[in-house]
Amino acid sequence: MIIVMEKNSERSALEAHLNEKGYEVHTLEGGDDVLLHVVGDTNALEAQAISSHEGVKKVIRTKEPYRYVNKPRESGPFLIGEQSLDTMLPFYIAGPCSVESEDQIMEIAKKVKEAGAHALRGGAFKPRSSPHSFQGLEKEGLMHLKNAARAHGLFAVSEIMDKEDLPLFEESVDIIQVGARNMQNYTLLKALGKSRKPVLLKRGFANTVEEWLLSAEYLMMHGNDRIILCERGIRTFEPSSRHTLDLGGMLTAKQTTHLPVIVDPSHAAGDYRLVEGLSRASIAAGADGLMIEVHANPFQALSDGAQSLKPKRFAKLLRSLHAFDKHNKHFP
Amino acid sequence: MIIVMEKNSERSALEAHLNEKGYEVHTLEGGDDVLLHVVGDTNALEAQAISSHEGVKKVIRTKEPYRYVNKPRESGPFLIGEQSLDTMLPFYIAGPCSVESEDQIMEIAKKVKEAGAHALRGGAFKPRSSPHSFQGLEKEGLMHLKNAARAHGLFAVSEIMDKEDLPLFEESVDIIQVGARNMQNYTLLKALGKSRKPVLLKRGFANTVEEWLLSAEYLMMHGNDRIILCERGIRTFEPSSRHTLDLGGMLTAKQTTHLPVIVDPSHAAGDYRLVEGLSRASIAAGADGLMIEVHANPFQALSDGAQSLKPKRFAKLLRSLHAFDKHNKHFP
Amino acid sequence: MIIVMEKNSERSALEAHLNEKGYEVHTLEGGDDVLLHVVGDTNALEAQAISSHEGVKKVIRTKEPYRYVNKPRESGPFLIGEQSLDTMLPFYIAGPCSVESEDQIMEIAKKVKEAGAHALRGGAFKPRSSPHSFQGLEKEGLMHLKNAARAHGLFAVSEIMDKEDLPLFEESVDIIQVGARNMQNYTLLKALGKSRKPVLLKRGFANTVEEWLLSAEYLMMHGNDRIILCERGIRTFEPSSRHTLDLGGMLTAKQTTHLPVIVDPSHAAGDYRLVEGLSRASIAAGADGLMIEVHANPFQALSDGAQSLKPKRFAKLLRSLHAFDKHNKHFP
Amino acid sequence: MIIVMEKNSERSALEAHLNEKGYEVHTLEGGDDVLLHVVGDTNALEAQAISSHEGVKKVIRTKEPYRYVNKPRESGPFLIGEQSLDTMLPFYIAGPCSVESEDQIMEIAKKVKEAGAHALRGGAFKPRSSPHSFQGLEKEGLMHLKNAARAHGLFAVSEIMDKEDLPLFEESVDIIQVGARNMQNYTLLKALGKSRKPVLLKRGFANTVEEWLLSAEYLMMHGNDRIILCERGIRTFEPSSRHTLDLGGMLTAKQTTHLPVIVDPSHAAGDYRLVEGLSRASIAAGADGLMIEVHANPFQALSDGAQSLKPKRFAKLLRSLHAFDKHNKHFP
Repeated sequence: MIIVMEKNSERSALEAHLNEKGYEVHTLEGGDDVLLHVVGDTNALEAQAISSHEGVKKVIRTKEPYRYVNKPRESGPFLIGEQSLDTMLPFYIAGPCSVESEDQIMEIAKKVKEAGAHALRGGAFKPRSSPHSFQGLEKEGLMHLKNAARAHGLFAVSEIMDKEDLPLFEESVDIIQVGARNMQNYTLLKALGKSRKPVLLKRGFANTVEEWLLSAEYLMMHGNDRIILCERGIRTFEPSSRHTLDLGGMLTAKQTTHLPVIVDPSHAAGDYRLVEGLSRASIAAGADGLMIEVHANPFQALSDGAQSLKPKRFAKLLRSLHAFDKHNKHFP
Repeated sequence: MIIVMEKNSERSALEAHLNEKGYEVHTLEGGDDVLLHVVGDTNALEAQAISSHEGVKKVIRTKEPYRYVNKPRESGPFLIGEQSLDTMLPFYIAGPCSVESEDQIMEIAKKVKEAGAHALRGGAFKPRSSPHSFQGLEKEGLMHLKNAARAHGLFAVSEIMDKEDLPLFEESVDIIQVGARNMQNYTLLKALGKSRKPVLLKRGFANTVEEWLLSAEYLMMHGNDRIILCERGIRTFEPSSRHTLDLGGMLTAKQTTHLPVIVDPSHAAGDYRLVEGLSRASIAAGADGLMIEVHANPFQALSDGAQSLKPKRFAKLLRSLHAFDKHNKHFP
Repeated sequence: MIIVMEKNSERSALEAHLNEKGYEVHTLEGGDDVLLHVVGDTNALEAQAISSHEGVKKVIRTKEPYRYVNKPRESGPFLIGEQSLDTMLPFYIAGPCSVESEDQIMEIAKKVKEAGAHALRGGAFKPRSSPHSFQGLEKEGLMHLKNAARAHGLFAVSEIMDKEDLPLFEESVDIIQVGARNMQNYTLLKALGKSRKPVLLKRGFANTVEEWLLSAEYLMMHGNDRIILCERGIRTFEPSSRHTLDLGGMLTAKQTTHLPVIVDPSHAAGDYRLVEGLSRASIAAGADGLMIEVHANPFQALSDGAQSLKPKRFAKLLRSLHAFDKHNKHFP
Repeated sequence: MIIVMEKNSERSALEAHLNEKGYEVHTLEGGDDVLLHVVGDTNALEAQAISSHEGVKKVIRTKEPYRYVNKPRESGPFLIGEQSLDTMLPFYIAGPCSVESEDQIMEIAKKVKEAGAHALRGGAFKPRSSPHSFQGLEKEGLMHLKNAARAHGLFAVSEIMDKEDLPLFEESVDIIQVGARNMQNYTLLKALGKSRKPVLLKRGFANTVEEWLLSAEYLMMHGNDRIILCERGIRTFEPSSRHTLDLGGMLTAKQTTHLPVIVDPSHAAGDYRLVEGLSRASIAAGADGLMIEVHANPFQALSDGAQSLKPKRFAKLLRSLHAFDKHNKHFP
């Protein structure tokens, strides 16, 4: 950490405070500033608090804030069920926003399997902005999802909202999803950190890449290193898509960490007409996979119909993606 | 709800679907569009799904999405402990970001009480972006807060992160805070909806006013109508303050609902030099109160030091605020 | 400027490059980083370019980027016409978005003068997003504005879009406005820097405070130090107001510079129902004045009707503002 | 246009006003609202003004705001110099941010030509945020650019800031660039609308796709239909890249208009490490070309060094892009 101070400011109290906490402080004078170079585990220091000290002009962190996510994977292959993720790249997850009925999810499972997907998504506990919107089939939905996935040799993926439901999710799905709204729900992250199931960690729609990786850090610190990061668009002023897909953020995540990073173009777009272009863009840029909403009859969907592809269009898209995966360096 | 369709589009399937769900559909032709006016409880309809129907150009909601927060209060006075909130307006909450020790919170309690605050804030369970930052004194911190508040005739306010801790919070504090990161943690909101304690609901830093009121709607739908809304800045591109205080959003919330709306200028600013100006602005604009961070020794604070006022400066600020509250129409 | 480099990186070429350009370089080693402290007029250095040098982790500016706007005013009183601005604080500018006819502007001038305004605004050359919208009465509009202002003892304020029109503006108005869309039109700024008329410089709706002050710096560098800064809201994700008024940015501008800073709540809000609250907030926070849209018949306005106050409501607002100006420290 | 009014509101004045202006008004009653369907050229109506009328709940535009950009091209091939653009797709523009010297631009021209670029970029008049930054070599720079382009069979592209310089640009370059900061400089747009040179219109970093297309509409309305749109990232809260590349916006532009749309990944990223990934993404998504910054010695660049590729890396990138262009439907 570097503390930039005004030339003649009183800094003995600050230096004493830092020494007491076990940090070395090196000083450099010159020009109008004095630089204090603080050496030690400075991630535990509150940069903002120090910046309120008299005479401090700036406090700059020079260390990455991570201890885990920026290290190479050491614990053997990244298994989904009993299959190693690196044999399935790019990894394609597809399915409806919500499980709506046993038949609906069974039919979609068949279609997305035929198209080449590896995993089946389907929400059972839905985080809806309005309490008056459809909230999901809950436990029953999870069972339908599990059955449909098993029947077609697909992995099951669904979103958890409450750590109390963890036992239920552990027996029903292969990958537990943390949604954008819960990316900073640390109670949930700590519980999932102790689970043995892989976690799909979506980026919050207003979170920086650094905050996203720090949420992954929570999972890893508590013992779970099977994390798939998922970029799904950030909130901006542009109204023509629901969110703005941040492929620069996806690339930054890949350059910072060895974790796999996939993209959800459906939630980013909010409009099926943009999904194919953004899917191609994501794979070409180097994403390790995609999560795409597929629905047999979008206009009657109980949630997110506008952004769903019909199964036929999804199948055509997957076929076209092979050409775009050539130059990518995938995890790990 | 209005559905704008292209002139010659096929609309019988859509109309049949809507009729089947119990909606009346009135049709108006003219120009290049056909308008379908859908009458009934259209909040349960998925506008986005319908917009994916062939021939649909736009789907426009004409109804407010609320059933509760836009209605006048009917259940008697809004009590905090045994005191009616409307006798304490503007309502001032002050204290440190985190409870750091028994002495620290006791000392601050004394100072903010003398300055004229009504309630004492202090975090015990802290939602920190990094798992390597100070996470709070937890249960012990809550006890220190309770004791300090009682000793000085202040109400206690602290943030909850886990519904499991609800019994602990119910016996320790007078107002339970939901932080910005948990504004859309619906699991937590549903549990608090069943509590008998007032809830301070912070706006998420990337949430619209509508989403914020819909989160209050979750609380009310589950039975809790004692909600204080708190605007605390939104995430924008401007780096000179941590967030951008949205007083237009505060006003919109007040114009839409009868709930009290206060402002937290400390988290919006992230810098103590902006706190006084933003406090005056908030009260002048019509906020029902403020929540302000006060710390005796900001540069040693374990969290959020940069935005904390020293007690003396806080006392001076409160004295100055009387002039700014003249033209306000407070809740209810 | 501080350059943070990795410990064992090759830095002789970089140091030689900096020395050659006349900078002193001091070095500090310790921990995992080497710090280069570059002393001299580092505002002329391209921080971004240096950051691309092998081994560079970060480049941090420690100097303010300004040479003019952060210095105290030295050139005597800030005159508007022949009157010193500091005798008219808070300075109130009011009038319609566009001059629509001779009668319209004459009538409004009378009303805003009676209400206590100092200056009359009215657009004659309009920067409209669509070429199909009303583009203004141009030269004729400027004449009507001038006549209406003179007839009622008001200063005239209007927006310029083309440096070619500068002679026309210099003879017609007392303050030349640079609109948000032209804040970084450096061609225009350089021309106005050579004018003897005061300039009202609006903040671009997507510009940082630093960029805004740097645009003022363009004006001052070319010789014009009579600049009124005007905050008018920034573009964010929140849809309930047209832009989000950034009073933190207004305060930062006031704390950084000695220039007067006013607020335009009308364009920030885009809705007349928010204008009064935001006006009170601005004055309470310490703004040096307001620019408010007033129109006798908003729903027939040729531009910006939704955000205009009727004259009666404007008069009432001005009367109420006196209470909010108590604690402010105005420029200079 | 649809006007949604409250059931029992007085609407005769509004209807009379609309009829008087030549619009047909159809009315539909039902539920709690009355809908007025206004038929005619409603782009000339001020939706915002009408929304301020008593009893109006919402005003909704149903018509696209364009008259030109959404129509198919009718005026023969889109020529750059004497070559049809559609024979050069994807169209690659490369070169330094600024022309720094005769040798520099000549050397880069050679390299980017060898790599397969079609056009040479180089700024001569630079819109810099700070007046203390390098402002470009101006006329001399333009001459160097022209000579380097001609010597290597490349088209020359450079940014104009002042309509006065139009004759100079018309004789020096093949494509005149309008920068992001000038996207809403209507004075400049109107002048370029009368020019016979193709225009490269960059999207403003805080402008919506609709505003961008409306700026193209200004050019077309004044007679110039040779417009290349260029997406270059929008301003968001994410700090890891300079701007956030909006490929959804690029796709929306392509789906709305028949104009070619290219991408500038260099300015979006602000960091050379993201440029290759974003380039692949753009071409895979369907962009009609790229504009990429290339510099022989980035760390000494006088502007934008951090985002420049070295020539070798650029050449490798271009070779890799062929695979990503397979499924694209290019203009027109």
